This record gives sequence, C-alpha cells and structure tokens, in this order.
Amino acid sequence: MAVNLPVPELHQLHAVSGVTLGVASAGIRKGGRKDILVVALAEGTRVAGVFTQNAFCAAPVQVCRSHLSASSEIRAWVVNTGCANAGTGERGLADAQETTRMLAELLRLQPEQVLPFSTGVILEHLPMEKLRLGIDQACGVLGEASWLDAAQAIMTTDTQPKAASTKVMVSGRPVTITGISKGAGMIRPNMATMLGYIATDAGVSQALLHDLVSEAADESFNAITVDGDTSTNDSFVAAATGASGVVFSSAGDPQWPLFRDAFIGVCRQLAQAIVRDGEGATKFITIRVIDAVSREEARQVGYAIAHSPLVKTAFFASDPNLGRILAAIGYSGVPGCDVNKIRVALDDVLVAEYGGRAKGYSEADGQRVMQQSEITVTVSLGRGGAQAVVYTCDLSHEYVSINADYRS
Amino acid sequence: MAVNLPVPELHQLHAVSGVTLGVASAGIRKGGRKDILVVALAEGTRVAGVFTQNAFCAAPVQVCRSHLSASSEIRAWVVNTGCANAGTGERGLADAQETTRMLAELLRLQPEQVLPFSTGVILEHLPMEKLRLGIDQACGVLGEASWLDAAQAIMTTDTQPKAASTKVMVSGRPVTITGISKGAGMIRPNMATMLGYIATDAGVSQALLHDLVSEAADESFNAITVDGDTSTNDSFVAAATGASGVVFSSAGDPQWPLFRDAFIGVCRQLAQAIVRDGEGATKFITIRVIDAVSREEARQVGYAIAHSPLVKTAFFASDPNLGRILAAIGYSGVPGCDVNKIRVALDDVLVAEYGGRAKGYSEADGQRVMQQSEITVTVSLGRGGAQAVVYTCDLSHEYVSINADYRS
Repeated sequence: MAVNLPVPELHQLHAVSGVTLGVASAGIRKGGRKDILVVALAEGTRVAGVFTQNAFCAAPVQVCRSHLSASSEIRAWVVNTGCANAGTGERGLADAQETTRMLAELLRLQPEQVLPFSTGVILEHLPMEKLRLGIDQACGVLGEASWLDAAQAIMTTDTQPKAASTKVMVSGRPVTITGISKGAGMIRPNMATMLGYIATDAGVSQALLHDLVSEAADESFNAITVDGDTSTNDSFVAAATGASGVVFSSAGDPQWPLFRDAFIGVCRQLAQAIVRDGEGATKFITIRVIDAVSREEARQVGYAIAHSPLVKTAFFASDPNLGRILAAIGYSGVPGCDVNKIRVALDDVLVAEYGGRAKGYSEADGQRVMQQSEITVTVSLGRGGAQAVVYTCDLSHEYVSINADYRS
Repeated sequence: MAVNLPVPELHQLHAVSGVTLGVASAGIRKGGRKDILVVALAEGTRVAGVFTQNAFCAAPVQVCRSHLSASSEIRAWVVNTGCANAGTGERGLADAQETTRMLAELLRLQPEQVLPFSTGVILEHLPMEKLRLGIDQACGVLGEASWLDAAQAIMTTDTQPKAASTKVMVSGRPVTITGISKGAGMIRPNMATMLGYIATDAGVSQALLHDLVSEAADESFNAITVDGDTSTNDSFVAAATGASGVVFSSAGDPQWPLFRDAFIGVCRQLAQAIVRDGEGATKFITIRVIDAVSREEARQVGYAIAHSPLVKTAFFASDPNLGRILAAIGYSGVPGCDVNKIRVALDDVLVAEYGGRAKGYSEADGQRVMQQSEITVTVSLGRGGAQAVVYTCDLSHEYVSINADYRS
C-alpha cells in the first residue's frame, strides 16, 4: 500500500566501484528471509555517519560512534535484522563488539574498522551463533549481491525494498551515488528503526564527507516523520570510495555543488521512500513552511502540523479541515506569532489568511486537493526569510492495526 | 464507551448558593438539543479563569481576557455550543462582544461583567439571531436548571455529561464546590474545545482565587491529554460567591488547605472525566514520573509517553510493549538523562531497570496489568526529588474513525 513508491528495478541501481555486497539468511528471527548484509569497502574509503539522538540508544549505535572516532579507516559494515540489540545493557554492548570481531577476522581487518547495525525486536539479546553463521555465509558470497538484494536484506516490516541511484558527470568522468534505506514508522521499538546507507565512488575528504552527511541528513532523514517517535537504532552512514578517480577535498571545488545536490537528492528519495511506505500511509504530504524568522522556527511549525493526529486523520479522510491546521500552527509555540499574517495553501489553493478562511476559498477547491495522493501544504508565517520542509503521511485505521496487532 | 465514567446523578450535584442556571435550545447547529447555558452570579462573587495558550485563540477567549482585566465584578457567563466563533477575524470579535451586550441587557449588567464562551464548528460565524433568542429563553428560566442540565447544555461530541460536586465542613459550616466540564479530544477544531466551570459558595479573595485557579488547572486540566492537540477555545473559570458565609482571604488561613484540596479534587475529577470520555478511549492511563530534577522535566517525560502513538496503540492492544515506553523516555529530551538509573513499573510490576528488562519481570505479569481498564505507569528518573502526573487514554481504531469521519 506504499504511496507512489515503485519497487526499484535492478538495472536502475548502479554498482559503486569499491563497494562489494554480500547477503545471507541467518534465521535471526524468522527463517527463509535475507537478514544479514555485509558491505565491504575498498582501502582508502572515507566513511561518516549520523545516529539517533535517543538517550536509550542501542548497543550497535554506541559501537559505531566509538569506532568512527577511533578509526579513520572504516572498511566494512554489517547489518542484521530481526533483533535490534537495544535495551540489552552490558551484554548487548559485548555482543555488538563481538560482531565486529567476527567480521574483522573474516575480512582481515581490525574490529575498529567495522561498523555494526541491528534492527528488529528490542529488549532481546542477539543470537550470536546464528549471527556468526550468517556473517560467514555473507562473506562467502561477497561481491555476488546487488544493491536490490542489499535493500531486501535490511527490510523488517517494510512492505517493499527502498533504494535510489544516480550518476553524474564530474569534469567528464561519471560518478555514481547509490543508497538503500529501511523503515516504516520512525520507530517500531520491537522491529525498530530507520536505517540509511549510501555509497559513492567519488573521493571525498573526511571532513567534507562529515559535513555532507550532516547536511544531507538535515534535508532528508531529519525532515521526515511518520508518527513522531524516534528510534533507539536510527543510523545513516555514507561511504566515499574514490574509485572513480574524482576527488573532492573542499566545498570550494566548482564541481562540488553538482555532486552535493545529486548526493542529497538520493538521500531525499531514500528518506521519502520511508514516508511513502509509512505504516498505514495512504497519502504523501509535503509541508513547506516559508517566511519564517529561522529555519528552526519553520521546522517547529512543520512538525506541529505533521505530528497532529487530528491533521493526519483529516488527510486520511480527504477532509480540507483547515481548523486543525490553523490550530496546530497556533500551538506550535512560535513566540510572538501574529495569526493575521499567516497564509495557508493546499497545493495552489489559498485556504486561510488574516486569521480565518481566505476570501474566495471554496470547500470544493480544498476537497479537490485533499483527494490527491500527494499534497503540499504551504504555510507562510509572514515574518522572515527562512523556510523548511517536512515530509509526512496520513494517520489511518491501518496504522492502529499495525501497531496494536504488531506483537501478536 | 467512556472508561469507568458513571453518568452523574442529579442528587449528587449540590446547588451552589449564589449561582443560578438557565439553559435553552437555540438550534445553533442542530435542533432539539440544549445548546445555551447562562450562569448568573450573585453580587460580590469573585471570578478567575485560565485560557488556551494557542496563538489562534477564539474571539470569546479574547473577550474573556479583556473583561476579566477590565472588571472586578463579573456577574454572568454565557456558553453556546455548535459554533466556536474561532478563526472568524474582526466580525467574530464583534459578535462575541455583542453576545455579552445581549445578556448584560437582560440581567441589567454592564457588558464587561459578562464572560462569553463558544464551542463547536470553527471558521464559521455565530448565528446571532438564534443566539439572541436562545439567551432570551435561558434567562426566562433562570434558576430552573440543575447542574446536570448545565453539564448537558455544554456537551458537543461528549458521549455523556461531566460534573462533579463535593461538600466540606469549614469551621463548622458546610461549603459546596460543584463543577462541570466538556471535551473529548484536547481539540476538535470543528466541534472544539475543553471547557471547565466550577463554583463554590465559599468567599475567596480575588488574588487568592486567581492563584487557586492556576494551581488547580496545573493539577487537573493541564495534566490531561488525549491527542496532544491544544484547542483554540480552551477555558476554565471559577466563581466564589461567598454565600456560605465562609470567607478566605489568605492562603495562611488554617482551613485553607482543606478547602483547596477539595476544590482541586473536583477539578481533577472534571479533567479526568474528559480523558475517560476521550475519543475512542478504552483505557484510562495515569503516568507518574518521579525522582526528576524538576516538575517541568517530570512532566516533559510524562507527555512524551502520553503522546507517543506507539505507546498509545500498545495500551489499546493490552501489549506490555516496554520498548515503546523506554524509547519515549529516551527521546523526551531530558538533558543528561542516564538510562541506567531509570526504573519503569506498570502498576506494581517492575518492568525495566538498568537500561533493559527488569530481572524477574515476566511478560505474563505485564500482560495482566495491561489488560486492566485503568493502568498506572510509574517512571523513576533516579535523579532528583520532583514529580508530575499526566492522565491520558489509549489510541484506538475508534479515534481514527471519529476524527476521519467527523465532518461527513
């Protein structure tokens, strides 16, 4: 039931030189499905990542942070689904470290060169023997898996694999950017988490890659919400192998904006795919808040609208219920907000201005927009030059069913 | 379908000397139901109120604030349902002022001595002619209505009237406290709003009453949430007539704590009734956060849990899904929160400690508590001496149905 989210086709997902993939079925939670992904990165690859801000962060997230600060030569990632290794205390931490040792041994690396990721049931320990066999198996077929296989291997309750890929010409040379993501609620603490992985064969210096990942996350994974919950395991990491021969060492490079935009574009597709496959989603909603004093303020208003259960159920019902949107803006907590300056539009239909219904607005026009599967809400705060965009979906009966029936 | 909320019985709702009530059916939105309440207050009555913090506050809220600051002799309240007079601009303000003039004329008061309240559809103008006839009619039967009639007259989508009443002996004299409330979501922008009215025949000085109302709101109406949305019209006002002969002029009065506690107790009942009748509610949840650094921090954690759609659907499903509660605590934004110090209990069952599942916790114990219609979640943050309580309900299919189908 994902909203306008075609299943990626194999030929659309370009291989990234310097990155090899292996997947396996370890039966971590259920048998018969791919649940282990190993990503091996060529020597010289630069890696950067951003992680959940949740204080209850999972053991693998702690290990990722520690390894990223200890080593400048990350050479492999390992992802398991079925068990999140979150809320598992000291033993969980030891298990995550042991996972990196297993893979390091097989690939002849140091454990600090491996980043571990887990997603699935929380408050349960990793089945280490199954995991070991799965990692063995994935390493045995390293290089044989496609990005589509990889996207499938990290799925939990996603209804379909999520991947995006592009090629850009930089100074006459083709540069590839390919990524995968998973997630269907912002958090599913039993089968948890948003994960995003992106790789490019451009060379990018460590500092520049770090900044790019932060900026890209801000424009993509940090701009989406399904239900406002933040997972214990959320992770987004990027690898730049340099195998294309194109190298960026400074944002001042005249070709950088071209590459940067392509990179962020892939991240945005991966992030939007999560919303399109949001739990029970029937509509994809873009909330654009403009004319704000700051980007932070614009985002605050955007999230207030995106998180309102009343606004979300109105979208589900195709009901142009302006009152709910206005009320959400009103309680978003923007200091000194003058409601008379606020204008709200549904796509190209101006629905509210001067603190009330817009002159000339007819319910039929609002209704027409609300029936679409993709809707843009534009809110002008009329008080500055900053803006922000938030992507979300509606709140349907299916959301309640998925989350109420989840463990049964 | 309200959770453990008996319909108040007439004989349980004590009349308050100095307060007379009149109700009428004005057909504001639909015919055949009471939709106007007039409350007349004896000379010398002190009145105080608190109102929505929503920037899109309704016209009557603006008039209430203005009249409360202009006049120390509020003598009447008028409430209409069916139309919220919110998002109605200048004309809405003029209509709310005209409403106070209508009632003032009939009761021989100044318009500034009248407080107007509206709840119902927003973005529509008040039908002033119907309103005038309704107010006429209600004044014609002033003194004939009971508090139960009053509670019924302010209902919108509430499934039942909400009222509470008590008597306390102060220095040998009986003092009465009686109140009514309405609301089923924290906001229903089309048929909006939480309203609370409470009256006592104790005499309370203006300053003391003002402080009492703030404190009582903090312990009751500000501690409840159904869906986290804040209405444009929320209002809670209190009247102290002094007709009992008991007078409080200072919080230092030795009898004050007795009266204060009884007053807050009635407010808490009125507020909890709103949650018990929450849209689609099947469970009443008390979230008690203890051992916090500050009350604000405790409340922040309480609301993070209470607003999480994942936690709420888990309650609906009677699923002891600890991960969702732990994750909500984790992202509540308490700075420097040490997850290893946090303990979580469902009623008397300790479910989590040291960042994971509690030793000795069995799913069967959690399951047993989750199946109850009333559940207390206790969270110890293990970092201070402050605490706060938040009351909420679960998130059911019915919530989505009510809010998606609402205007159709």
